Amino acid sequence: MSKETTLSSEMLYDGRIMKLYKDSVELENGKTSEREYIRHSGGASIMAVDEEENVYFVTQYRYPYAAEVFEIPAGKLEKGEEPLTCAIRELEEEAGLKADKFELIATVYPTPSYTDEKLYVYLATGLTETEAHLDEGEFLGVEKIPFEKAYSMAVAGDIHDAKTLVAIYAYAARKARGELR
Amino acid sequence: MSKETTLSSEMLYDGRIMKLYKDSVELENGKTSEREYIRHSGGASIMAVDEEENVYFVTQYRYPYAAEVFEIPAGKLEKGEEPLTCAIRELEEEAGLKADKFELIATVYPTPSYTDEKLYVYLATGLTETEAHLDEGEFLGVEKIPFEKAYSMAVAGDIHDAKTLVAIYAYAARKARGELR
Repeated sequence: MSKETTLSSEMLYDGRIMKLYKDSVELENGKTSEREYIRHSGGASIMAVDEEENVYFVTQYRYPYAAEVFEIPAGKLEKGEEPLTCAIRELEEEAGLKADKFELIATVYPTPSYTDEKLYVYLATGLTETEAHLDEGEFLGVEKIPFEKAYSMAVAGDIHDAKTLVAIYAYAARKARGELR
Repeated sequence: MSKETTLSSEMLYDGRIMKLYKDSVELENGKTSEREYIRHSGGASIMAVDEEENVYFVTQYRYPYAAEVFEIPAGKLEKGEEPLTCAIRELEEEAGLKADKFELIATVYPTPSYTDEKLYVYLATGLTETEAHLDEGEFLGVEKIPFEKAYSMAVAGDIHDAKTLVAIYAYAARKARGELR
């Protein structure tokens, strides 16, 4: 197996949601190279599907794209937090929902060349509406959309967020193949 | 629509594959906050499917995860490069393949809270084998796997890379729904 050995590691930035590192590494051919990457606490996200197969989405201004992005509810893991605990919390905070059942459908590496983030994607069913209560400084809109409409949006190229595309297409595949439990 | 207005922008790091910025922004409620994020050139990736429905994957050591990651072939856009040009190049460089047809199946935002990367995901068909020629310092293994086996690996949680999961599940959904062209 290929491997890269750390020769030295330097933290260049210690931020609010990320740390940036630059490491010197030895490659498998003995040469030296640099690796610059983010360390991130990870996150949990939830595709919540109700009895009529509506799905709950949030739209949120995402500064790096200078645009509102259409996503499933999600949030960062707190230090030492279990992904499922985070998923339960974020689903209630962002979408005002409780769920009877959470199924982990993927553990996603968003862009493996420069972040160590792990993003857990859950399918939540057996929903009960409660009340959303957003964090200070968090602004988002919640939309309940029939699954088939969301699927059409994905196919049309109107959905971009990675976790949201994984969730929609994984659900669509399982549904069409008769594999939904 | 919610919006955040840039008050000031500071580049904290100018690296080989990324730039890190910290901006001060005004939120829609008038309060001030900070946004720390990566600027990245973007990338193109390719799910190449042959006549017998085998798919070409690459495994590559990904330093942030300290592990080999199973992915579809991909690479960074060069400055000003069209995504399709990049996809054609990377498919040949990494997998040793030319393709008659490229279809854009998604433009993915990998993790929209802290990067502006856009990752274009193509489905490539009509394949001809040529010869792989990797960049200096690039080490990867190519594997040709039946699509149904790759789908099972995704469902079993053995695939983590975001673009790879999007490609596999999008293909699986279209196939099962009779929507493949």
